[in-house]
Formats: sequence, structure tokens, C-alpha cells
Amino acid sequence: MPEIAAFLSEVKASVDARLDEIVPSSEVPPTRLHEAVCWSLFAGGKRVRPALVIACGRAFGADDEKLITTAAAIELIHTYSLVHDDLPSMDDDDLRRGRATCHKKFGEATAILAGDVMQTLAFGAIAGDVAISPELRVMLIELISEAAGTPTGMVSGQQLDLDAEGAEITINGLENIHRQKTGALITASAVAGAIIGGASDVEIAAVEDYARSLGLLFQMTDDILDVTQGTETLGKTAGKDAAMQKATYPSIVGLDATRRLANDLETTAIEALGRVDRDTNLLKRLLEIVANRKS
Amino acid sequence: MPEIAAFLSEVKASVDARLDEIVPSSEVPPTRLHEAVCWSLFAGGKRVRPALVIACGRAFGADDEKLITTAAAIELIHTYSLVHDDLPSMDDDDLRRGRATCHKKFGEATAILAGDVMQTLAFGAIAGDVAISPELRVMLIELISEAAGTPTGMVSGQQLDLDAEGAEITINGLENIHRQKTGALITASAVAGAIIGGASDVEIAAVEDYARSLGLLFQMTDDILDVTQGTETLGKTAGKDAAMQKATYPSIVGLDATRRLANDLETTAIEALGRVDRDTNLLKRLLEIVANRKS
Repeated sequence: MPEIAAFLSEVKASVDARLDEIVPSSEVPPTRLHEAVCWSLFAGGKRVRPALVIACGRAFGADDEKLITTAAAIELIHTYSLVHDDLPSMDDDDLRRGRATCHKKFGEATAILAGDVMQTLAFGAIAGDVAISPELRVMLIELISEAAGTPTGMVSGQQLDLDAEGAEITINGLENIHRQKTGALITASAVAGAIIGGASDVEIAAVEDYARSLGLLFQMTDDILDVTQGTETLGKTAGKDAAMQKATYPSIVGLDATRRLANDLETTAIEALGRVDRDTNLLKRLLEIVANRKS
Repeated sequence: MPEIAAFLSEVKASVDARLDEIVPSSEVPPTRLHEAVCWSLFAGGKRVRPALVIACGRAFGADDEKLITTAAAIELIHTYSLVHDDLPSMDDDDLRRGRATCHKKFGEATAILAGDVMQTLAFGAIAGDVAISPELRVMLIELISEAAGTPTGMVSGQQLDLDAEGAEITINGLENIHRQKTGALITASAVAGAIIGGASDVEIAAVEDYARSLGLLFQMTDDILDVTQGTETLGKTAGKDAAMQKATYPSIVGLDATRRLANDLETTAIEALGRVDRDTNLLKRLLEIVANRKS
């Protein structure tokens, strides 16, 4: 197995084990709530954000033990956002990672609560992470709260996305949505790892540049896949963006220009890593995976 | 003005000022999101939880400066829970504090996001509270996460409440719902103040007993008011519990027995305060206000 595949499967196993400790088992009452949380959390997600936390942390010499809770917490926040994004009043999606979305399976009310409580558990887990100092814990909670929140984080990006539905939007407007909606938490994942590893401000800035490009690239490949791949390959409804009249890179600049922009971002990310005098091999491989992903 | 009324109006002013700093102004994009947050947050709430944080903190000698961010954060969590509870798939309420609920005014998607981000902002605010030590901040975040989360907190209580709709329920089952759904965060408010004030474990336990009784009393008076008062007085839809076939204290044991249970709780709470050798006058007055509230 190539190094990066082994790394990703190792991350998945250790993050899932930590998530299993953080989240009450689906046998604990109220079982419906915990079943819904577990249904969404253990649905075969690729754990890209945890992989970033751990790859960045390792690059700066942090032990996995100090990284794993933050990695799991960020995955909880990401998953809560997917559960809420899929709701009927938002993207109204029936399918996610090849199976029924949380509200389709457990009803809307429970899906809302499952999302709510994943966020609660995420911040609680970092606050209680005895593997790192209280100073570091509050720094990470602030970082992740800003990235997951508003006015330049995940939730504000989701609102911008809603506001843009059916409206004319420029490529800058679209980039702003993505930088907030998905980019901010991806960037925070990399920065969290670097901070836990004790990176310098200059190193953190380089990691931030890398992750910003990676985050946008992730969104571009998502947009490309939505037009080029079928529902079965994606494990979610394909062609959804066009059906929802959502602005995407291909819909604004076309598929070829989107592919060129994606290549530029990959170059920018590699250059940023060049400014970090550490072993950034895993981070380079993660970038390749995002650039070449097929689902 | 009696001491307690002056205290409550002082708390309201200072908590609202702190909330105003934590939450982006409604002119900051995305404006729809921030208008929705402000609409729900500055809707004339009584700020009972912040009052508990501050009254308890003061009893143990904490400066208001060290209490105000935690008080504001808990109000953010409480308000997010109201916004989500009012949603069509939950209690489906049109009216809250005398005006349109968040989703009625801003639509369901924005109401969900407004609730989500209030929770994010709450934990971020405590993490960044430089008036208290990082050790204290992580302790408070853990406390509040547990109280707001699952399996014995606010969200699990809300799920139990949903599960109980239309089902037969015992008085113990009902008490369990309330202890989680509303009691846990009320108790955490009092305990947070005591912790910030440096209370001993014995003192914290006494405060916890006081607040548990107060929290349950709050719910009983809520149930009583729902049957005895009109919509105009309550500022929310009266008779809602019966219409939703929700179990309440009056529906299980009748109105008179509910009033007796409420009196017993008041006595228990006063006894608990007797175990605290500090000036607990404000806490006694808060208890009276909850016991005698008319809306």
C-alpha cells in the first residue's frame, strides 16, 4: 500500500476510535439521538480534516496523542454541518455517502438535534483534552470557533450560499462563499496541527497558505465531480448543483477554466509548503489526493 | 426599586452589552444571519441564567468582569435552543416573547444557522475570555458542554421530550426530561458562577442542589402558566402543551398537586442555600421570582 493510503487508513482508524469514546453509544438513551449521531459520523467519511490535523502536527513533531482529540472534534463539527446542510430547508438532500441522510432516516427534528449535539461534544472534547495544556486548548477552541462560525467562517459561508441561490454571482463572490463555507474549517485543521506541534508564526502562515489553496481546490474538484460523475460514484445526488441553480466554478467559467484554476491552486499550495523546512511529504500527498479525487 | 429588580435590570444591561460585543452587528454580512441572531437574542429575554451566574459568582466574591462572558455565553446557548425548539419540525411555534419566532421572520434555513452559530460563538467567547485563567475557561467549557449536550443535558432532554409526545409518561419520566432539557443548563449557570468565585466542593454541591430545585420549579411554573394564562400575558402561544399532547405536571398530577410540588421545591432550594455561609440574598430573591412569576 502506498505511504499515503496507509496514513489515511491509520488516521481513519484512530479518529474513529476517538470519536467512539467522545460520542455516547447508540444504546445509551435517548437512543434515537445517539443512533442518528453515529449514523452520520460513522458513514464512511474520508476524514480529510483529521488527516490534515495529524499530517501537519506530525510535520512539526507533535505526538499523535496530542492531535487526535482535536482531529476528532473537527470531524464532529464537519459532520454536524453536513447533517444540517442536508435538511429539507437547506439543500434538501436524500443521499449522503451512499446512504440515507440523517433526516431521511431519523426525521428532521432528530437530525437537527444530532447536528446540534455534535457541535457541543466537539468543543467539550477539546476542553477536556488532558494531552495538551489548557492554554493550547483555549487557543484551539477559539481557532475552531472562528472557523466554524461567523462572520468569516463555515456558518456565514452557508448563509452566503443560501443568499446566492438563483442569483447572479461573480467568481470572486463564489470564492468568498467557498473560503468561508468549506475553506475556513479545512484551514483551521492544518493550522491546529501546526499550533499543537509548536510551529513558529512564519511556519503557521505557510501552512495556512497551503491549506487555503487546498480548501478551494477541494471545492473546485467537488464542483467538477458534480457535473462529470454519476450519483453512484459520488455516493450523493449528482447534478444537484445545476438542479438547485447553484453557482459553481464550471457554471461561471466553464469546465476547462475550472481545471486550469485547480492546477494553479495546486501549484500555489506546493510553493507554500516549500517555505516550511520540515518533512511535508504527507501534506504533498494529501494535496495530490484532493486534486485527483474521483468521488 | 426593590434590590432584586435593580439587580435584574443591571444584569440585563451588562449581559446585553457583552452579547453585543460577541455577536457581529446586523450590518455585517451576511446580514440576514446576523439580523436573525440579533432578533432572537435581543427579544426581551429575562436573562435568568446570566442572573444566576452573576448572583452565584458574587456570593463567592467574584468580580462581575470575570462572570460576564460566561453569563453571556450561557444566554447564547439558551437562545440557540429556543430558536431550534421553535422550528416547524420541533414545537412549530410562531410566537416567542411576544413576536414572530426566528424561522417565521427569517425562514427555516436561516433560523437553523442562527441557532448553530450562537452555539459556536458561545464556546468561542469563553475560550477567549482573558478575564479568567485558561484552566478556568476549559473547566467552564466542559461544564457547559455537558449541560448543553448529551446524554444528560439539554439536547438529550429535547430528544426525550420529542420521544414522549403522545406517549404515556410517569411523573419520574417527566422530571427526567425537565432535569435535562431545562434543568441542566440552569444548574450549570449557578455552578459556573460558584466555580469562578472559587467556591469549595461542598459549597458547589449546595449551589447545585439549590439550582436543581430552582430549575425544576421554573418548569413547573411554566406548565402552570401554560394552562392558567393567556397568549398575550405569556408572549408565546398559551395552551400549547395540551394542543401538542405534551405531558406536563398539571396533565399528570393535576394543578393543585403541581402547586404543592412547586412549594416543596422552593423549600428544598432554601434549605440548600442554608448550607452556604455567604450572602445568598440575591439567590433567595431569584427563587421567589421564579416561584411567583406570572409570565
